[in-house]
Amino acid sequence: MREFLAARSHAIDTSEIRRVFDLAAKIPNPLNLSIGQPDFPVPQPVKEAIAKAIVDNKTGYTQTAGLPALREAIVEFLAEKTGFRYHPDHTIVSTGVASILFLLFQALIEKDDAVLLLDPYFLIYPALVRYHGARQFTIPEDFGEAEIATLEAELAQKGIKLKLIIYASPSNPTGKILNRLQLALLAELAEKHDAVIAADEIYAAFDYENQHVSMASLAPARTLTLNGFSKSHALTGLRVGYLAAPPRFAEIVQKMITLQQYTMVCAPQPAQWGAITALKTPIHEELKTMKRRRDFVIDKLRMVTTLASPDGAFYVYPKVPVDSAQFVAKAIERRLLLVPGYIFSANRNYVRISYATREDILEEGCAVFCGLVEELTTGVSNETI
Amino acid sequence: MREFLAARSHAIDTSEIRRVFDLAAKIPNPLNLSIGQPDFPVPQPVKEAIAKAIVDNKTGYTQTAGLPALREAIVEFLAEKTGFRYHPDHTIVSTGVASILFLLFQALIEKDDAVLLLDPYFLIYPALVRYHGARQFTIPEDFGEAEIATLEAELAQKGIKLKLIIYASPSNPTGKILNRLQLALLAELAEKHDAVIAADEIYAAFDYENQHVSMASLAPARTLTLNGFSKSHALTGLRVGYLAAPPRFAEIVQKMITLQQYTMVCAPQPAQWGAITALKTPIHEELKTMKRRRDFVIDKLRMVTTLASPDGAFYVYPKVPVDSAQFVAKAIERRLLLVPGYIFSANRNYVRISYATREDILEEGCAVFCGLVEELTTGVSNETI
Repeated sequence: MREFLAARSHAIDTSEIRRVFDLAAKIPNPLNLSIGQPDFPVPQPVKEAIAKAIVDNKTGYTQTAGLPALREAIVEFLAEKTGFRYHPDHTIVSTGVASILFLLFQALIEKDDAVLLLDPYFLIYPALVRYHGARQFTIPEDFGEAEIATLEAELAQKGIKLKLIIYASPSNPTGKILNRLQLALLAELAEKHDAVIAADEIYAAFDYENQHVSMASLAPARTLTLNGFSKSHALTGLRVGYLAAPPRFAEIVQKMITLQQYTMVCAPQPAQWGAITALKTPIHEELKTMKRRRDFVIDKLRMVTTLASPDGAFYVYPKVPVDSAQFVAKAIERRLLLVPGYIFSANRNYVRISYATREDILEEGCAVFCGLVEELTTGVSNETI
Repeated sequence: MREFLAARSHAIDTSEIRRVFDLAAKIPNPLNLSIGQPDFPVPQPVKEAIAKAIVDNKTGYTQTAGLPALREAIVEFLAEKTGFRYHPDHTIVSTGVASILFLLFQALIEKDDAVLLLDPYFLIYPALVRYHGARQFTIPEDFGEAEIATLEAELAQKGIKLKLIIYASPSNPTGKILNRLQLALLAELAEKHDAVIAADEIYAAFDYENQHVSMASLAPARTLTLNGFSKSHALTGLRVGYLAAPPRFAEIVQKMITLQQYTMVCAPQPAQWGAITALKTPIHEELKTMKRRRDFVIDKLRMVTTLASPDGAFYVYPKVPVDSAQFVAKAIERRLLLVPGYIFSANRNYVRISYATREDILEEGCAVFCGLVEELTTGVSNETI
């Protein structure tokens, strides 16, 4: 039989992750701490804006790059947050940050280009690096000057210039927010290499101690800022994300817009009107709830393991005594669903716990997690005592 | 300065089309016959289904491939239309047929693969062929046995096997519906070449004399059927399209689903619920209106030019006396917006007129069109008489 699939398509695969989800789908009444989306509903004003767009027949194509009113509102939002005023013409709205990432890689990355990730990384980054035949370099997310120096030495020795530095702060899966010194080190690195920085701020609304600093406030001339409404306003299923570029990178965003004409065409129009309202709609109560849950989970987990308190997002990322694949399989036997760390890192001994879920499930889930860690650490099963 | 753009990105460009739209944007109160979307609103039951999804908090991610209920409904719809029952597992829902096309090309097409188009073609097809470095072959849309024989001779001489045959019936830009003999010839060609057929049926709801035949009813084992809700139910700005594959091509759709996890993630959830309702919502009145407009436009245009009556869609595609770029520029000077044929065909002497617009605009637009054709044919300006 003829081989139909294009060679490039073999570079991506989800069979390992799917195996976990297939196992999970068979569990009745699971303790699901694997979910990557908020459990709160879309805020009422945003719902109303979306509903109004439908009633008002705002249901046709929008401009390829997004509604002008939304692009203006994004520029205002980012100016207030970062102190840097992007130009609306240098912004693009697409069907979620995932779509933005794909358009960015298609426009920017070709075979053998060097891309720097922070480990642990959002799982789409390495997948896109592989898919585009690029070379992946990583430094740990708690890097300092020493790790940058080591990386620089390796790159210099191989004669490689970085083309793209991409990270999420707050991080998925760890919740870590990069500090000013770390941002300055990355900015300096980008300058030396004449590289693009892609700052993925999709979790920036979940910043429990007001620590988040945007790269665009430190190094605006080299920084693409990526964000969206899936996490902050629970619009995961409505598909709106965006990217803003400084003038130096105008041609990148222009090419992304051109490519969008041949792919997603535009982001859904009613959701774009919802996004305009979302930019004016704070989520104070939702944040308080999330922070309370974070503190609860951290307290519980510290009884069996050491871990840093995550600064933001809605995940904790504890170490487990065995390979994460094995740990997750054992957790599933006890109805507990987690995401194995090996999809986020070269280090396989962590798992991601999401606390974007009901407190009673969190409490029971944490108890199962702690029991399993203790059992695997001591080799004694609580169930058999 | 460093070259940031990936080489592949230079294969797509929209500057020529954009020039027309930039010109058009400066026209106050235009006679806009360039629009590629219905002017009727989203049917009320579909609107209500979308609004209900938002109220009911059906706003999160769906399964990557689409809501199971929608995939089932699509299978039922296609079974009734084509007599062939696709399997729900072999379907994918994405953010419009444009997204489906991109995922399909990414999964299937690599450098130098041979793709057959019918000329005139939907403009995204040749763009995707170029973007993927594939080789484009064309036959005229009114092809018969002779044209197939000529193509076969050329391919045989070059030692080339077709990988993909892709067409839209009804056609954008001509409205032509392929007849049974033509479908049989394409099916036979696909069989000889062990090729995939992609039948884009996005305009199949606009079939004024009930002539449309699905390729899936003739050659189901080789036919991917593509469709969506943008045209039939005016959901252009809600972004839902789909593809269904026969068992032989299951791996293609599986790879598209995997790739969707890293790109669009899923189609917007509320719109997917709307699509389920759309499959049960006929558009009789809208069709009557469109047919009346088609007949009106044809009557007017036949006074100055010869053209076949389009079978479906909502376009006519008349020949003009000069290059279409020049004709469209002259039309814009008279407030009339048309789409130049050179973006749809190697033959540059046609323009696309959309009749998805108000009757008074249609009437005035047709008068301007006819005046311009007469003037350019006789060389005498009506304005100066």
